[in-house]
Amino acid sequence: QIADAVEATLTDGPLKGRHVIVTSGPTHEPIDPVRYIANRSSGAQGSAIAEALVRLGARVTFVTGPASVPPPAGVELRLVETATQMKDVVEAALPADAAIFAAAVADWRVEGASNAKIKKTATGDVPTLALTENPDILATVSQRAEGRPKLVIGFAAETNDVVENATAKRARKGCDWIVANDVSPETGIMGGTENAVTLIDADGAEVWPRASKSEVAKRLAERIAEALGPA
Amino acid sequence: QIADAVEATLTDGPLKGRHVIVTSGPTHEPIDPVRYIANRSSGAQGSAIAEALVRLGARVTFVTGPASVPPPAGVELRLVETATQMKDVVEAALPADAAIFAAAVADWRVEGASNAKIKKTATGDVPTLALTENPDILATVSQRAEGRPKLVIGFAAETNDVVENATAKRARKGCDWIVANDVSPETGIMGGTENAVTLIDADGAEVWPRASKSEVAKRLAERIAEALGPA
Repeated sequence: QIADAVEATLTDGPLKGRHVIVTSGPTHEPIDPVRYIANRSSGAQGSAIAEALVRLGARVTFVTGPASVPPPAGVELRLVETATQMKDVVEAALPADAAIFAAAVADWRVEGASNAKIKKTATGDVPTLALTENPDILATVSQRAEGRPKLVIGFAAETNDVVENATAKRARKGCDWIVANDVSPETGIMGGTENAVTLIDADGAEVWPRASKSEVAKRLAERIAEALGPA
Repeated sequence: QIADAVEATLTDGPLKGRHVIVTSGPTHEPIDPVRYIANRSSGAQGSAIAEALVRLGARVTFVTGPASVPPPAGVELRLVETATQMKDVVEAALPADAAIFAAAVADWRVEGASNAKIKKTATGDVPTLALTENPDILATVSQRAEGRPKLVIGFAAETNDVVENATAKRARKGCDWIVANDVSPETGIMGGTENAVTLIDADGAEVWPRASKSEVAKRLAERIAEALGPA
């Protein structure tokens, strides 16, 4: 892998001179010192995308939550835990030519997370978790008045009505592309080695054949290189 | 590690002929298909205990949630995700001479977990998670009228008043021993390689020196062998 990274650094790829931010993995939102809310995300697709971009010569800032797959070699690694931290680190990494938000960011965090472990009570009272909305990193970066990356790509993990939900998400967030996939348990995609995505852009939806996550990443990286053109 | 396991199987250790159940790791309680509530538990202490018991000749049923350290060689491995699954698997593994509940089981699960991904709404309405109490595996096994293991050991991960809280827990659950530790972030124990535990039994509290998790496991396994006596 180190040899690959060295090779990539030496490669005069089509993304030479480009800076790309990739987010990946889940975020963990604390409930108390021992509990948290998490998303099911191995980080495999995000890691594969970052690796494919490095191979095409890009400088990649890789902002990742606690993923279960290792980060690729050759990136500038930024480890975060919560959505708020991820937003801060992404904004600090700007400017960038492209930003790819592949992380499964928690939509909500727990309001007033406890500094002490929440205990079960003798009366059997059960706590209620009041949630509050996390910053929307994709929308924030997509809608920047200044310093917006030329190409902003979001991901949509859906369990139903994939194209409809993802198309609406693209319009709502103001990003350029949405990479949508069906994460229903029966697809085996979540945590698996393959992915079946639909690319949504201003022209509509393009269904890609099911392939390994690294194949999907390679195709997406090539599309990004095409869209950005020569540096 | 395989050689270790073979060695252990050949060893006529003091726990030869004994069956011990060890639970380990966190549980994951689903919120919807992509989100869950988890505990911070690497499973390192539970794995080390199972390994130490195998080395002393015990037959170990190792019931583990999604841990970040690999299970030890030489155990009968049972993989689970939720507290409810863990309880079912533990009960199915009985009878046992001893049961060690080192897992960080979620106290609560989400009532009516959603089968579809919960979406953010345009109005910014935020969902509230209603929790319901999980089965108490330690109390259930400790208080069995028939088929209770001779030695039932619980763990208490505390962030304050460790001995007081753990002593009360021992009485409330009806177990024989509590292995208590301080999981405050400043101790570095959670996710780390060392542990500093206090063993609570009918006679009081015994503070063990801070040591590697495998040293703590070895000492605990030897104590268990002493308590059970020859098979």
